[in-house]
Amino acid sequence: MIEIGLSKRAVEVFGFDDIAIVPNRRTRGVEEVNLAWKLDALTFDFPVMAAPMDSVMSPATAILMGKLGGLGVLNLEGLWTRYDDPSPVLDELAAIHDPQAATKKLQEVYARPIQPELIGRRLAEIADAGVPVAGSLSPQTCAEFAPVVEKAGLDFFVIRGTSVSAEHVSSVHEPLNLKKFIYNLDIPVIVGGCASYQTALHLMRTGAAGVLVGFGGTAAGRARRVLGVEVPMASALADAAEARRDYLDESGGRYVNVIADGALGSSGDIAKAIACGADAVMVGSPFARAEEAPGKGFHWGREAWHASLPRGERAKFTTVGTFEEILLGPSHVADGTMNLVGALRQAMATTGYSDVKSFQRVDVVVHTR
Amino acid sequence: MIEIGLSKRAVEVFGFDDIAIVPNRRTRGVEEVNLAWKLDALTFDFPVMAAPMDSVMSPATAILMGKLGGLGVLNLEGLWTRYDDPSPVLDELAAIHDPQAATKKLQEVYARPIQPELIGRRLAEIADAGVPVAGSLSPQTCAEFAPVVEKAGLDFFVIRGTSVSAEHVSSVHEPLNLKKFIYNLDIPVIVGGCASYQTALHLMRTGAAGVLVGFGGTAAGRARRVLGVEVPMASALADAAEARRDYLDESGGRYVNVIADGALGSSGDIAKAIACGADAVMVGSPFARAEEAPGKGFHWGREAWHASLPRGERAKFTTVGTFEEILLGPSHVADGTMNLVGALRQAMATTGYSDVKSFQRVDVVVHTR
Amino acid sequence: MIEIGLSKRAVEVFGFDDIAIVPNRRTRGVEEVNLAWKLDALTFDFPVMAAPMDSVMSPATAILMGKLGGLGVLNLEGLWTRYDDPSPVLDELAAIHDPQAATKKLQEVYARPIQPELIGRRLAEIADAGVPVAGSLSPQTCAEFAPVVEKAGLDFFVIRGTSVSAEHVSSVHEPLNLKKFIYNLDIPVIVGGCASYQTALHLMRTGAAGVLVGFGGTAAGRARRVLGVEVPMASALADAAEARRDYLDESGGRYVNVIADGALGSSGDIAKAIACGADAVMVGSPFARAEEAPGKGFHWGREAWHASLPRGERAKFTTVGTFEEILLGPSHVADGTMNLVGALRQAMATTGYSDVKSFQRVDVVVHTR
Amino acid sequence: MIEIGLSKRAVEVFGFDDIAIVPNRRTRGVEEVNLAWKLDALTFDFPVMAAPMDSVMSPATAILMGKLGGLGVLNLEGLWTRYDDPSPVLDELAAIHDPQAATKKLQEVYARPIQPELIGRRLAEIADAGVPVAGSLSPQTCAEFAPVVEKAGLDFFVIRGTSVSAEHVSSVHEPLNLKKFIYNLDIPVIVGGCASYQTALHLMRTGAAGVLVGFGGTAAGRARRVLGVEVPMASALADAAEARRDYLDESGGRYVNVIADGALGSSGDIAKAIACGADAVMVGSPFARAEEAPGKGFHWGREAWHASLPRGERAKFTTVGTFEEILLGPSHVADGTMNLVGALRQAMATTGYSDVKSFQRVDVVVHTR
Repeated sequence: MIEIGLSKRAVEVFGFDDIAIVPNRRTRGVEEVNLAWKLDALTFDFPVMAAPMDSVMSPATAILMGKLGGLGVLNLEGLWTRYDDPSPVLDELAAIHDPQAATKKLQEVYARPIQPELIGRRLAEIADAGVPVAGSLSPQTCAEFAPVVEKAGLDFFVIRGTSVSAEHVSSVHEPLNLKKFIYNLDIPVIVGGCASYQTALHLMRTGAAGVLVGFGGTAAGRARRVLGVEVPMASALADAAEARRDYLDESGGRYVNVIADGALGSSGDIAKAIACGADAVMVGSPFARAEEAPGKGFHWGREAWHASLPRGERAKFTTVGTFEEILLGPSHVADGTMNLVGALRQAMATTGYSDVKSFQRVDVVVHTR
Repeated sequence: MIEIGLSKRAVEVFGFDDIAIVPNRRTRGVEEVNLAWKLDALTFDFPVMAAPMDSVMSPATAILMGKLGGLGVLNLEGLWTRYDDPSPVLDELAAIHDPQAATKKLQEVYARPIQPELIGRRLAEIADAGVPVAGSLSPQTCAEFAPVVEKAGLDFFVIRGTSVSAEHVSSVHEPLNLKKFIYNLDIPVIVGGCASYQTALHLMRTGAAGVLVGFGGTAAGRARRVLGVEVPMASALADAAEARRDYLDESGGRYVNVIADGALGSSGDIAKAIACGADAVMVGSPFARAEEAPGKGFHWGREAWHASLPRGERAKFTTVGTFEEILLGPSHVADGTMNLVGALRQAMATTGYSDVKSFQRVDVVVHTR
Repeated sequence: MIEIGLSKRAVEVFGFDDIAIVPNRRTRGVEEVNLAWKLDALTFDFPVMAAPMDSVMSPATAILMGKLGGLGVLNLEGLWTRYDDPSPVLDELAAIHDPQAATKKLQEVYARPIQPELIGRRLAEIADAGVPVAGSLSPQTCAEFAPVVEKAGLDFFVIRGTSVSAEHVSSVHEPLNLKKFIYNLDIPVIVGGCASYQTALHLMRTGAAGVLVGFGGTAAGRARRVLGVEVPMASALADAAEARRDYLDESGGRYVNVIADGALGSSGDIAKAIACGADAVMVGSPFARAEEAPGKGFHWGREAWHASLPRGERAKFTTVGTFEEILLGPSHVADGTMNLVGALRQAMATTGYSDVKSFQRVDVVVHTR
Repeated sequence: MIEIGLSKRAVEVFGFDDIAIVPNRRTRGVEEVNLAWKLDALTFDFPVMAAPMDSVMSPATAILMGKLGGLGVLNLEGLWTRYDDPSPVLDELAAIHDPQAATKKLQEVYARPIQPELIGRRLAEIADAGVPVAGSLSPQTCAEFAPVVEKAGLDFFVIRGTSVSAEHVSSVHEPLNLKKFIYNLDIPVIVGGCASYQTALHLMRTGAAGVLVGFGGTAAGRARRVLGVEVPMASALADAAEARRDYLDESGGRYVNVIADGALGSSGDIAKAIACGADAVMVGSPFARAEEAPGKGFHWGREAWHASLPRGERAKFTTVGTFEEILLGPSHVADGTMNLVGALRQAMATTGYSDVKSFQRVDVVVHTR
């Protein structure tokens, strides 16, 4: 504990930029590394999900992600469920270059109500392609649209908010009882983001198959300026991983996946997330660099279109290659934005680990710069 | 204690940029948050005052602040009490873009003496609008003009200097005896800035209703270069909050408000100020972005026009919206400079707190960048 | 140990930028400083090797390095052993200024296979000049080309990989058994890079004459983004120096040279490397500033031309003088990129040390900026 | 002690930028502050010397400094003693804007030998103006020119090198025996720079009236890159102040002045130097901003013209006012480069101190940014 002043103490926390993975006495050939990731009944080729953000996940890119061996999650309260054809809206957004003008436009286009029938249609499009189907809602819209979602049928349901707790207090709206909701839903649920041992533990107790760790994705820096809130990911994951271990014991063996959601701008961050205890990562911004990305070189999250308090700005990204190249390579850039899976495999080989679970034990060091 | 060298030790201190608020296991609907702030006999809708700086507070904007539910403080030794009509002066200043030329011009226009009759006139303008009236003097001018101020009648009197102590030593000028002065004055007094447990405690013992914590507002960085003095706010507030607790006990129940005054450039800083123990904040620079701000896109404090040793530079700000939008929203920027009150409410909801007093206990972490 | 979070601990580590050498009570004339460095049977005028990177070491510059009193190492799996005449390739590369285009071109030109007969020819060119001969291979190519190398005859053989361990695991390729390989080879071997006490100790036990400490040279920053891996050099060297001491005891007196390989961008870094325990340094980027450098103002390492996961970018450097001026002076710049040997001599004189071995004990301080 | 790695430990040290002075419970009127500084037989109005650097001290500006109440030191091995009339040389230098070209020109113009007769003439010019006379030599030239200096007659003799110790070892040149030299010289001596408790103590034992603390003035950052050596001033002064205390006891009452020499770019740094234990400061770069400065907007130190290893670059400064305004005000800039003495007085008043000696006890805090 550090003393901020006489009446306040605090712990020091660390983000991915503050730490590094260190090689040790053993190395391994990359061909020895097995990245398989099991989530409930399914096994994926690698522990990388694509985040439910309209700038990276459309039904088309979700299908592409599935065909490449991963899991794409569609945002069920975004443009694809508000507009019959969101293409003109995406074109209009891509034509605006001033960030403030973009914020106003985002506030405008997301003001259109969600069309329940579009939820079913989008999920069906993905299912028809024969890949795993996953969609997300926020806790606010969950109760209203969950029946539609459940009926549409999907493999994984993601409940994703900036900050989600198992104890939401409200006297105006009936708060979502997560435990009851998840118990009644016949689909494995991933829920978050959370940022501490206790919230992670409480969310695990709701029966979720996975818990998202993070706070607002790309907008983290902005949340620090707007709300004063920040969740450095290395520490948050190491806390959530401890909750996983304790819940495993307390539940007599239920293993809940800890999934990093935020601050994953490069393949190095993905390796560090796992080194800090994550079982998998949910990636946003690197996919915004794909030729197929619906954001057409721009990237934004939910927090960017809040009607009265936007907490993130739309960001500009340079397109570097195809979705497949970004995920699986080959890379022709040296900045950690291409061949995400290959880089993770190489990081594990370099440090002598052969599977994701054991790589959670790799040594890390603190080196702030 | 850290050893600087063999003959010197120091404590480590923290500013708002060094810390972050962290969410915990409970969240709350924004509608559950109550921001009411009681200062002496009055209760305000939110714990945000506007700072007595000529670039943000004119009689007109002080009235606007009051009508929106807050408290605006007029600088009683600034342009409004030196000039019958300061508009041409403000226009002239706004036409100068070179910072050094601006410093010289500020030194020149503030050389004009204070007109005592204008003090009364300005305060009457505010009072006529039916909002709470507050004005400020520095310790140097306090004794001379306080009788005029008292006669004019106001709800709160602010004694504000770069560094104010209860023990000022001078053999040339008779120092202001704060305790006696406040005892004799029939108006609740807010006094500061101070920066340590002991100064805060001594100022509380003078009978003040509130103590300002900080050192020279926007000019803090410059004071570090000019005087070598700096007061990182997170630590200063946490120390002053401890003084409040000890004084509450020693006085048998007198609760003195701790008011953050400085380094509040974004709504996130406001939330952090309260998280470190402040009861309220006195905000300057965010209001310089208002369309109605008298500074017309420029911002400066008292320290910028010192005749022989200016310790702050006039700063340029981009106008982003109306005074009301900046204070109460809606915001269309994501940088924490609009909807200050809404952002504070959201920060409290996100972390599960329903009133300002309890939010002083929210967890913070150290994450220097 | 620092707690990252509840389930993860880490040590804090330091790079050259985080530390400084401090003068003490004695100073010495530069003429009192002896920089002689003994490596196996040979003694060099100073403890500086030139790194086997195609942008700095050609047969011609390796000869130049030898004639100036040092040791140049030729990369035996680079352009000089893939092309009969690499000049046109180097010209083509130098004509490309866009870094991404350069990465693609590097991937292309290094795709051409190594010509075993060129290995012998290049080494013979160096030997003919009457200077010590040294060449390098990576662990991947070692087994295949070592016989050719051995036959060609050289004074030192360098096995250099991004991360080399004495325990490489692979079920596909037969891993190189370093201990056996070095035992059978009739040439003193330098092997690395490594980054920890344990790896260094294991590599010393293979019978190597020297161990390289570092991880990928100039590309270190990129490896942090791509792989999440980083090896701050000050800490890595101080750990390896401890391994040298322990191995000296365990082996009954075999002294293995610890050679810093990476992050040596200035003469100050060279002095710090020795202050942290290195016996010698292997320098890359400063030589890229030489008029004679084959890279013609550009610099790149092995990691820049990886076919599917490049981890370093080709960098642009300004040419400042001749190879001799850069190594031995005189300097006419004040940034630590000229007169590397003179600067090391001056650093030792300023702090009162007369030989490299004792300078390993000089006081350093931590001053992060 | 911090562990860099298994075989190396280090202390953490602090520069002026890492610390800040904090106000406390007492404040004071500026008129209460007494800045008088006693050095041997003379008392100055304030504890600020001007550094013997050719870009700030000519005979004319040394006289100006004396008339304003301070002490200017002339470099006795610079342009004024190498050239009968250095004006054309200074004009030529001022006409070169490229830093590298400037370094080469400096190496050239300082290659001209020192003219012993000019030493006497320059000192006489200063003496004729009726102000205290002070001149400096480096330890290398001391023995040769001291007799000329002594004959010329001066009030203070400064022996100033990048790193000076009481134990210089050389078998080629007969090292200067400082103790004997100072004992024989009939003028009070100031000697340095030094950077540690032990060196400071040894220099005090030579009989010096003052000890300079620092390492190469403005070139400190460059020395870090060129030599790896750096002396963060806050820690160095706090160590030297402890040596002063111990030597005071050991000598039975001889008080040796500790004089900060380096990293004093702003008035805030001057206040911090005293807060860390300095009795006085020797200032360079702020005077380079004076209209009268011989450097005509450029600034350089001894280390910039080293023939084979320059360790500092000539720097460009903006002229802001007269020498008198920079020293004594009034200031019209807010960056700590004008009214150095007024700023020190204000810093002491703000924190409640009335004399330099007691201000050495002011509280400082660590706040790295």
